[in-house]
Amino acid sequence: MTTTTPETIDDTVDDTNDRHSAKMRKKKAARDRLMADKAGEKGLLIVHTGPGKGKSSAALGMVLRCIGHGMPVGIVQFIKGAMDTAERSVLEGFPDLVTVRALGEGFTWETQDRARDVAAAERAWAVAADMMADPKIAMVVLDELNVVLRYGYLPVASVLEAIAARPPLQHVVVTGRNADDALIEAADLVTEMKLIKHPFRAGVKAQKGVEF
Amino acid sequence: MTTTTPETIDDTVDDTNDRHSAKMRKKKAARDRLMADKAGEKGLLIVHTGPGKGKSSAALGMVLRCIGHGMPVGIVQFIKGAMDTAERSVLEGFPDLVTVRALGEGFTWETQDRARDVAAAERAWAVAADMMADPKIAMVVLDELNVVLRYGYLPVASVLEAIAARPPLQHVVVTGRNADDALIEAADLVTEMKLIKHPFRAGVKAQKGVEF
Repeated sequence: MTTTTPETIDDTVDDTNDRHSAKMRKKKAARDRLMADKAGEKGLLIVHTGPGKGKSSAALGMVLRCIGHGMPVGIVQFIKGAMDTAERSVLEGFPDLVTVRALGEGFTWETQDRARDVAAAERAWAVAADMMADPKIAMVVLDELNVVLRYGYLPVASVLEAIAARPPLQHVVVTGRNADDALIEAADLVTEMKLIKHPFRAGVKAQKGVEF
Repeated sequence: MTTTTPETIDDTVDDTNDRHSAKMRKKKAARDRLMADKAGEKGLLIVHTGPGKGKSSAALGMVLRCIGHGMPVGIVQFIKGAMDTAERSVLEGFPDLVTVRALGEGFTWETQDRARDVAAAERAWAVAADMMADPKIAMVVLDELNVVLRYGYLPVASVLEAIAARPPLQHVVVTGRNADDALIEAADLVTEMKLIKHPFRAGVKAQKGVEF
């Protein structure tokens, strides 16, 4: 190995090749990101959290924007049901631009099977990681990932590492209640959706076009 | 005039026909709404407010849901630029379901012409009122109406009256910062988008697919 740039020499001395290449990837991503920043272009890490409505809807609104710009989008649903078949059917009308993968097995209080939930989360994460490794994908939506992290089904550190190593112009949108502090710290844009008033409390059932 | 139902007799004695028919329309709407409620179906008044991002995006996400269900949607933009041509181009791909009308003249601090702004707001409102009078339209999005109300370009009372008299199953979504208290009071579902972190503060410019 003939490393000549001074900042990499110390790092590699005690590392295996695997660890080294992971580090190099991170460094390259950081450098690329810095260069991109200078040109004013930057892939943003966006978090929609809080107990209010609109976290996934606002992500969908951004997907619509990307479609309008001809920017390819990847969507991974970590919890089943967060995105309805109605929305999916519209998005599937743009097969060249939008890829939707739903891998959640349903809410945990329904499945009550932690091992199965962890396995589902890991499968979903593998798909997400592939999308985040593809510089052709302009935006990756990780729908309800916060919930999965909250339950400890995926390690926050690996998720943050993959997000940091993504292509520098790629936007990542993470939705779900109770976003991890480290994710908020890493994010560029964080919105908390706060619930002021909700019709279910007044005995009104979920309405087509609004809730699903 | 041969009104026989007791609750309408007193109301009409001193009224002109116009006022009477407006009152009757309101009563009918209230009764229809009550009946609809009993069946669990209800057109919701939804407000997205607060200083955070995602107010219009979340409305767009709901529009996407409606498109997926084949539910017709009307969108009125009260401030120019709130919805980009990119999004509009996607929505215009569903001409049978989505009508978008942009009538704002731009932000007030750009125009600095109150009379022109008021006239633009009134034109936009006339379009919105037509949409809200049409029971075939399942959802009406009044994008950035809150800003217009805040500046006093339209009287809040007339806006609330028209919203209350809309077809009972029609959803209305109002977006914009600083929602009026009376609108929040009348609403079924209110979400406040709270800004936790914003990239512009860190010197990053608006990004395609996210901001526009």
